Amino acid sequence: MSITLYDLCGADQDIRFSPFCWRAKMALAHKGVTYDGVPTPFTKIPEIEGGATKTVPFVVDGDTKIGGSFQIALYLEERYPDAPTLFGGETGIAHARFVEGFANTVLMGGFAQQVVKNVYDRLDEVDQVYFRESREKRFGTTLEALHEAREGKRDALKASLNPLRMMLASQPFIGGESPLYSDYICFGPFKWASLVSDVPLLADDDPVKTWFDAIDGRHNAL
Amino acid sequence: MSITLYDLCGADQDIRFSPFCWRAKMALAHKGVTYDGVPTPFTKIPEIEGGATKTVPFVVDGDTKIGGSFQIALYLEERYPDAPTLFGGETGIAHARFVEGFANTVLMGGFAQQVVKNVYDRLDEVDQVYFRESREKRFGTTLEALHEAREGKRDALKASLNPLRMMLASQPFIGGESPLYSDYICFGPFKWASLVSDVPLLADDDPVKTWFDAIDGRHNAL
Repeated sequence: MSITLYDLCGADQDIRFSPFCWRAKMALAHKGVTYDGVPTPFTKIPEIEGGATKTVPFVVDGDTKIGGSFQIALYLEERYPDAPTLFGGETGIAHARFVEGFANTVLMGGFAQQVVKNVYDRLDEVDQVYFRESREKRFGTTLEALHEAREGKRDALKASLNPLRMMLASQPFIGGESPLYSDYICFGPFKWASLVSDVPLLADDDPVKTWFDAIDGRHNAL
Repeated sequence: MSITLYDLCGADQDIRFSPFCWRAKMALAHKGVTYDGVPTPFTKIPEIEGGATKTVPFVVDGDTKIGGSFQIALYLEERYPDAPTLFGGETGIAHARFVEGFANTVLMGGFAQQVVKNVYDRLDEVDQVYFRESREKRFGTTLEALHEAREGKRDALKASLNPLRMMLASQPFIGGESPLYSDYICFGPFKWASLVSDVPLLADDDPVKTWFDAIDGRHNAL
């Protein structure tokens, strides 16, 4: 029986931008596991598997139901021990938690300010009501005000990627010579932004762009 | 023959604040290796081992001379394979490069704005001339202006530690249940700031303070 992945979608069901779902999709691809992706709008998440979760990604594998991108990656690592490792052992898992801390605060925060209005524009009407209310509460301002201010915050976003840039001077991926789950943790927010943004957020000569393209191409190949 | 570590010092030779030297000292302690520390003011660094290096830490171990805190840690890992690991394998080394990217940009940059004048005040006159010139060039402003502006930047510094805080919600160290070199990479800038700052830079109830104290106490015990 194949794995089912509930994946966030926009008004167009083919638009799948969730940064957290991308982590899970990259982890599945890394393990070479095929899956059925179920497009799920924001307001349909509470109906998944009869109310099994409040968030996506959510995976069903036979009798196993599992939510949270990091938990899904840990599950896949244990379930498919003979497929390429996602973590490289316990130390890799522990370090991936630090990478997650960076990605969920610095990358998610920085990109959200750039693209939150772009995400809104991709949703159907029902989701737009939910999204506007929850995000305006989170940011303490309107989506339009965030959108208006985004250019002024682009230099700070660029500077916030310096940890990645400095690392990339030593090696092509966080995992070393090839990507591991830590790379996908960071890739998620970049992929999210690249799918919805109406302006490029990475310069062509930025080493971070080279890193992103390498992972993106790898997934497409898989 | 014991290892020699050239360690930065202030006007008082017992003041050893260099964040990079702290990484090396923590790595040596982690491996249980004793060493002779040679106090070295900024302007005496070019005289180390007849001009062998432009930076500290610098280690001499018999015929082996090695500079750069990360390189020193890699050397110790190979030289003392039976002592507790600093990296936990290749994946740990690769991830430590990302942690280094974070520490050398976010932590070093943030703390430098807070304590660069405090460091200056700890140096002897000859070093002060070198330090003022090089740091004012780097920051594009005077040490006094940086010192004046530091309070206004303390909220940003606090926010910049969120990646660590989020990680600490899952586990006590970047290395997992016990510290690895990645923890010492971050510890260096915190120790540096704590040794020279005239004001506390971490609140007592900050989980980052708990993490710092645990590593600091561990080193003192060693």
